[in-house]
Amino acid sequence: MRPNPLREAFAAGTPAIGSWLSVPSSVTAEVVGNVGYDFVCVDMQHGLIDYTSMVPMLQALSLGGSTATVRVPWNEPGIIGKVLDAGAMAVIVPMVNTAEEAEQAITRGMYAPRGSRSSGPIRAQPLEGPDYADVANDHVEIIPMIETVQAVENIDAILATENVNAIYVGPMDLGVSMGLGRGTTDPSFTDALDHIVERCNAHGVVPGIHATPQITPDRIERGFRMVVVTTDLTAMRTNLVDALSIGRDAEVDDAGAGGGY
Amino acid sequence: MRPNPLREAFAAGTPAIGSWLSVPSSVTAEVVGNVGYDFVCVDMQHGLIDYTSMVPMLQALSLGGSTATVRVPWNEPGIIGKVLDAGAMAVIVPMVNTAEEAEQAITRGMYAPRGSRSSGPIRAQPLEGPDYADVANDHVEIIPMIETVQAVENIDAILATENVNAIYVGPMDLGVSMGLGRGTTDPSFTDALDHIVERCNAHGVVPGIHATPQITPDRIERGFRMVVVTTDLTAMRTNLVDALSIGRDAEVDDAGAGGGY
Amino acid sequence: MRPNPLREAFAAGTPAIGSWLSVPSSVTAEVVGNVGYDFVCVDMQHGLIDYTSMVPMLQALSLGGSTATVRVPWNEPGIIGKVLDAGAMAVIVPMVNTAEEAEQAITRGMYAPRGSRSSGPIRAQPLEGPDYADVANDHVEIIPMIETVQAVENIDAILATENVNAIYVGPMDLGVSMGLGRGTTDPSFTDALDHIVERCNAHGVVPGIHATPQITPDRIERGFRMVVVTTDLTAMRTNLVDALSIGRDAEVDDAGAGGGY
Amino acid sequence: MRPNPLREAFAAGTPAIGSWLSVPSSVTAEVVGNVGYDFVCVDMQHGLIDYTSMVPMLQALSLGGSTATVRVPWNEPGIIGKVLDAGAMAVIVPMVNTAEEAEQAITRGMYAPRGSRSSGPIRAQPLEGPDYADVANDHVEIIPMIETVQAVENIDAILATENVNAIYVGPMDLGVSMGLGRGTTDPSFTDALDHIVERCNAHGVVPGIHATPQITPDRIERGFRMVVVTTDLTAMRTNLVDALSIGRDAEVDDAGAGGGY
Amino acid sequence: MRPNPLREAFAAGTPAIGSWLSVPSSVTAEVVGNVGYDFVCVDMQHGLIDYTSMVPMLQALSLGGSTATVRVPWNEPGIIGKVLDAGAMAVIVPMVNTAEEAEQAITRGMYAPRGSRSSGPIRAQPLEGPDYADVANDHVEIIPMIETVQAVENIDAILATENVNAIYVGPMDLGVSMGLGRGTTDPSFTDALDHIVERCNAHGVVPGIHATPQITPDRIERGFRMVVVTTDLTAMRTNLVDALSIGRDAEVDDAGAGGGY
Amino acid sequence: MRPNPLREAFAAGTPAIGSWLSVPSSVTAEVVGNVGYDFVCVDMQHGLIDYTSMVPMLQALSLGGSTATVRVPWNEPGIIGKVLDAGAMAVIVPMVNTAEEAEQAITRGMYAPRGSRSSGPIRAQPLEGPDYADVANDHVEIIPMIETVQAVENIDAILATENVNAIYVGPMDLGVSMGLGRGTTDPSFTDALDHIVERCNAHGVVPGIHATPQITPDRIERGFRMVVVTTDLTAMRTNLVDALSIGRDAEVDDAGAGGGY
Repeated sequence: MRPNPLREAFAAGTPAIGSWLSVPSSVTAEVVGNVGYDFVCVDMQHGLIDYTSMVPMLQALSLGGSTATVRVPWNEPGIIGKVLDAGAMAVIVPMVNTAEEAEQAITRGMYAPRGSRSSGPIRAQPLEGPDYADVANDHVEIIPMIETVQAVENIDAILATENVNAIYVGPMDLGVSMGLGRGTTDPSFTDALDHIVERCNAHGVVPGIHATPQITPDRIERGFRMVVVTTDLTAMRTNLVDALSIGRDAEVDDAGAGGGY
Repeated sequence: MRPNPLREAFAAGTPAIGSWLSVPSSVTAEVVGNVGYDFVCVDMQHGLIDYTSMVPMLQALSLGGSTATVRVPWNEPGIIGKVLDAGAMAVIVPMVNTAEEAEQAITRGMYAPRGSRSSGPIRAQPLEGPDYADVANDHVEIIPMIETVQAVENIDAILATENVNAIYVGPMDLGVSMGLGRGTTDPSFTDALDHIVERCNAHGVVPGIHATPQITPDRIERGFRMVVVTTDLTAMRTNLVDALSIGRDAEVDDAGAGGGY
Repeated sequence: MRPNPLREAFAAGTPAIGSWLSVPSSVTAEVVGNVGYDFVCVDMQHGLIDYTSMVPMLQALSLGGSTATVRVPWNEPGIIGKVLDAGAMAVIVPMVNTAEEAEQAITRGMYAPRGSRSSGPIRAQPLEGPDYADVANDHVEIIPMIETVQAVENIDAILATENVNAIYVGPMDLGVSMGLGRGTTDPSFTDALDHIVERCNAHGVVPGIHATPQITPDRIERGFRMVVVTTDLTAMRTNLVDALSIGRDAEVDDAGAGGGY
Repeated sequence: MRPNPLREAFAAGTPAIGSWLSVPSSVTAEVVGNVGYDFVCVDMQHGLIDYTSMVPMLQALSLGGSTATVRVPWNEPGIIGKVLDAGAMAVIVPMVNTAEEAEQAITRGMYAPRGSRSSGPIRAQPLEGPDYADVANDHVEIIPMIETVQAVENIDAILATENVNAIYVGPMDLGVSMGLGRGTTDPSFTDALDHIVERCNAHGVVPGIHATPQITPDRIERGFRMVVVTTDLTAMRTNLVDALSIGRDAEVDDAGAGGGY
Repeated sequence: MRPNPLREAFAAGTPAIGSWLSVPSSVTAEVVGNVGYDFVCVDMQHGLIDYTSMVPMLQALSLGGSTATVRVPWNEPGIIGKVLDAGAMAVIVPMVNTAEEAEQAITRGMYAPRGSRSSGPIRAQPLEGPDYADVANDHVEIIPMIETVQAVENIDAILATENVNAIYVGPMDLGVSMGLGRGTTDPSFTDALDHIVERCNAHGVVPGIHATPQITPDRIERGFRMVVVTTDLTAMRTNLVDALSIGRDAEVDDAGAGGGY
Repeated sequence: MRPNPLREAFAAGTPAIGSWLSVPSSVTAEVVGNVGYDFVCVDMQHGLIDYTSMVPMLQALSLGGSTATVRVPWNEPGIIGKVLDAGAMAVIVPMVNTAEEAEQAITRGMYAPRGSRSSGPIRAQPLEGPDYADVANDHVEIIPMIETVQAVENIDAILATENVNAIYVGPMDLGVSMGLGRGTTDPSFTDALDHIVERCNAHGVVPGIHATPQITPDRIERGFRMVVVTTDLTAMRTNLVDALSIGRDAEVDDAGAGGGY
């Protein structure tokens, strides 16, 4: 098996720092995969990416050292199997609100006898090595998302599900579900985050969360150990806005210049 | 015809500020096209983009207000015609070293009687309006690149070529051609830039140049009136490197956290 | 939010006239999107289109004024969320046969508290405006299809489902389900259509239907207020058949012509 | 070798009737290829099509009986070889203005000793049969376009070029080149067409031309024997405009209908 | 309807010999489709193929005579309908473990009154003929996979499901489910295969299985009547490994050769 | 710079063994790139591959250790620069018949002062290292093809061209050019091969040739030091034909089997 910085960080208890891909392109995937993040996640849920684009993106990510991660569009067996066969080593599963849904996510991502994943690791095995199918259950992470009030209410049962080693908080949806809106800073919201971290620690599960560069230090200090700092598109747009300002603000030399026509 | 901020800036004598697309994706094109640049250039020469990807990128650029610009891979009639038919309103032509090559570039981009562009504006006409074919010669910019010692020696003849309204300096290649290397800051290099600007002003031609955020203020102050500040990939990578540092530098809360396994 | 002719027609009580995309191409999408229809539907169920092709098609549709509509392959949460995030403003959901299925379709397309759509409008928000997420529930139409005997039997319960503002009849499947076959003109079939219209009017819901140019006047006169007249492929094929006849029927000049070899 | 209706029409002296593909899609190619035209041309010059899209389009055309034809973007050896290797049986070469350019087009499309086409018919040979490479020179048509005043002046020399069995008039460009504009009906323009037909007949070369449904009968009566009646996009758009009128003109039933909100 | 060698073999009781596509390419599909197999299966479950790639692959398969078969990723109505509409004539459905799941697979692939497949055979009907929709239920094969202990336990109920004419054994998953591992040769495994064949014969259902060239004779002798011998990727890789050995083993002539620099 | 087995073999005087890609797919490229060949060539001339497909193929090849090689469609500056920027470390240039054409190929692939390649190694530099642009001229191989009588006549002048370190014989075209046909075994043909090898040795240039598994031992013994043994498609088809025979030849068990219907 290739090195897996996401799992290494989990084992070491240090924060796994990640970035996020929303653009359906193997070119951006190769570039992001070489920046040095512990993991890079291909977002098939809210990113503009489907399986057809994901395959060359996973190939491009294999050129770098980050753990190839995929968020699937939904908790469904077909797509969970397909992204694992194509080489994803971690799968983020959205909208896991109950222990039953957590158990479904786990079994869909693991081979028998633990789970019901169908055997056919067409790219994963040549990539990771001939023993892939034998050891995949010990190396692949299936990571449920916690993003509703219901999920928080069921947090202990979800965290107690066998083979749940990490969870990933979706703060936007959680804020909306709590009736506080997107980007809320309400104390009850950070209380919920702290509660999740505390229960994760109690269960020996890694708490993860989607963040921004601004809020990342707070999230890490708060105890999150798997943090996405930013995304391909946000990074690009932020820098391009700044660059445009530089162009607009530059002082123009008037000597000689005039209209071009 | 739709608004054309590149030409409006040319006419006003104000700097046209641009960005640059190297990623073959309509998703990044739409995002970059909405930042507010005067022009956005699809780079078919050094970008990882070919015609097949360029078409949906030009469609995406039409959703924003920037002038859709394309750098073709080489000074060839087939591809110059194809990018114009697909809706490009400005074409940057690399490695124009002589007046003859400038004349070739111009004629390949213009309809008879001025040029020899073949008629078939399959997307340009529905996009720009029913009079497109009649007025295209007055609205499309064919912009030769100045990027060798030979081109600088021939600068007056190139600038005197009819319908050359702007040129675009390739500083990397020019530095290499001068034996100074990429990213040179040798005074003879900036002297060459100043000479180009001076001759442009003398001919009533807009001087353009490829830049970086750091060097853009100098280039504009030096008299350039068409400046690319940065590219999609550079912007993305720069911001992602910064974001990773934020994650790595965050202070970790030790309470309760431990290895996940 | 951008103008939405489909909803404007619904509000005005005038027939919303639509066309239909079965070809996986942003080129045909741009052309059809500029003809002037109130809405244009990307058909992911029976069209030869999947999500990968749909994204540039929605980008192309944004260049025109028609309401970007998508028929999803099935009533599933993953794909309903993905097409909305990519910018669809109306979603047609096939095979809604019960009030429970209608409620599922609605909740999958709406944010909390009404629904369970996950938050991440990656293209919809930049396109429609910064308040998109706040007002999406009031602007997005989730439109169940009525296409089985069972659905007709449950029509009142389906129409009474909160946030069902329109339904769309699939006449082929309805005819088959009634045992009358495709393209039936049996009076019991048109009686069923009239019944659906009548119940829609009773519930204040817009009745929609898939049609052909030949049958469109009848459908509108019968009370349907959302009518697809034809599709990209049908339009193209019909006209090409006529054009071939013109070529075959032309009188040949015999003077001078002979075999070419 | 498979049947080749284009060549069969040439041999019989009957008009070869064709259609034209501008959309980069194997779906539209399959549909158009099954209408019954003698030839269908993939337009890589003014169509929105490049080689990457052309390959599955040629595969789709092989499902029908029309002669697979390609217009290359320019008279260049690389692309002429590539489209023939992929299975094109006729190649239309734009902007052939002199006998030298006609000779270049022919040699680029034919194997030694007549030409310099490189050997590697990767799809053409499995498709057409094991003797393809031996007989290709006798079955492939390389068809120069006549679309400038210069080409008309050189018409006899072009027509006398060995292996020029047909030419194809580009009326838009020819009108522009004559200073008469696109879509001209000036008598001097039709005189030029008649002159081309007359010289073709004198040389035993098939005269071809791009047309519209309206003008096709005139062109055939005038002696053209290879006529493109319409294109995929024109056909689709024409029919969709008519269909929209049907929807708009339908009489609305007022009973019971009202605004939906 | 076109010839269907898979069904012809079923009817004749002779083994249907198949190959398998894992590469998302219409080029490999055309090549494999012309080798002469009775059926060729596009594998959307473990192959690196999604719907977007599958459409041109089915077009390419139509150029050959093999029955176009698709393995869907999962037993879901949306994708089963889509692959049939695109022209698949047989659908292999993974992980059918109960009679209820078999019944679901059948109904999702058949029109009313037997099933609930939605009507819209956009490519299947032009390809197979105008009576496609009327006779599809009699020509399309929906083939459940038997690949778990649970499925073997339920084998009689599955085989007794109306319209199950063939089943397809997944030996890898079956071995894992039996706790014997992939590629097992344990007698209890071959006993299970013999039991499946025996029950198939008793029910008049064709037993199929995934195989390798080495094991194919055994499987056929054992009574399987639908056997996939190998896949596109396995075939390619196997031959390339051999070819490399030939190159490495060749005797080098030493005369005159030396380092190139 | 990454390891470059092609150049290492050149330096060591051992045969560089290669394979060849004709399928436009990153999936086949990854598989072939992991077999262990010294170099793998993406064939843009006769393969069904264009630049759009080539980029993810070069990404996939970077996952293996073979030297990424590209055959360009023709000796043109635009495409030679593009494939190098995308990461090709060797470029095979077809139809180089004169020393002038060899010099053109070399200068198009090398930076100033030796050549005129434009600077912008967008993928090559991140892949190969920050010094790429400084040392590329010493690491990139531009390899002219010898495939006509004219090229053989000019062989000494071609081999004497500075920076020609290897040539590649196209035996099909050479046989045709010699009037001997494809696949000739005429002694005058092998004499020509021996002559080419002898002149290469005299000039210190590596002789390369396109081969088959059958003929590879002879070619290596004859002195060729860069040999392509087979291609993706040939390998796949050869093995599939054998596999089909295995299926057809298997003995059928008659017990219990019968027609399925």
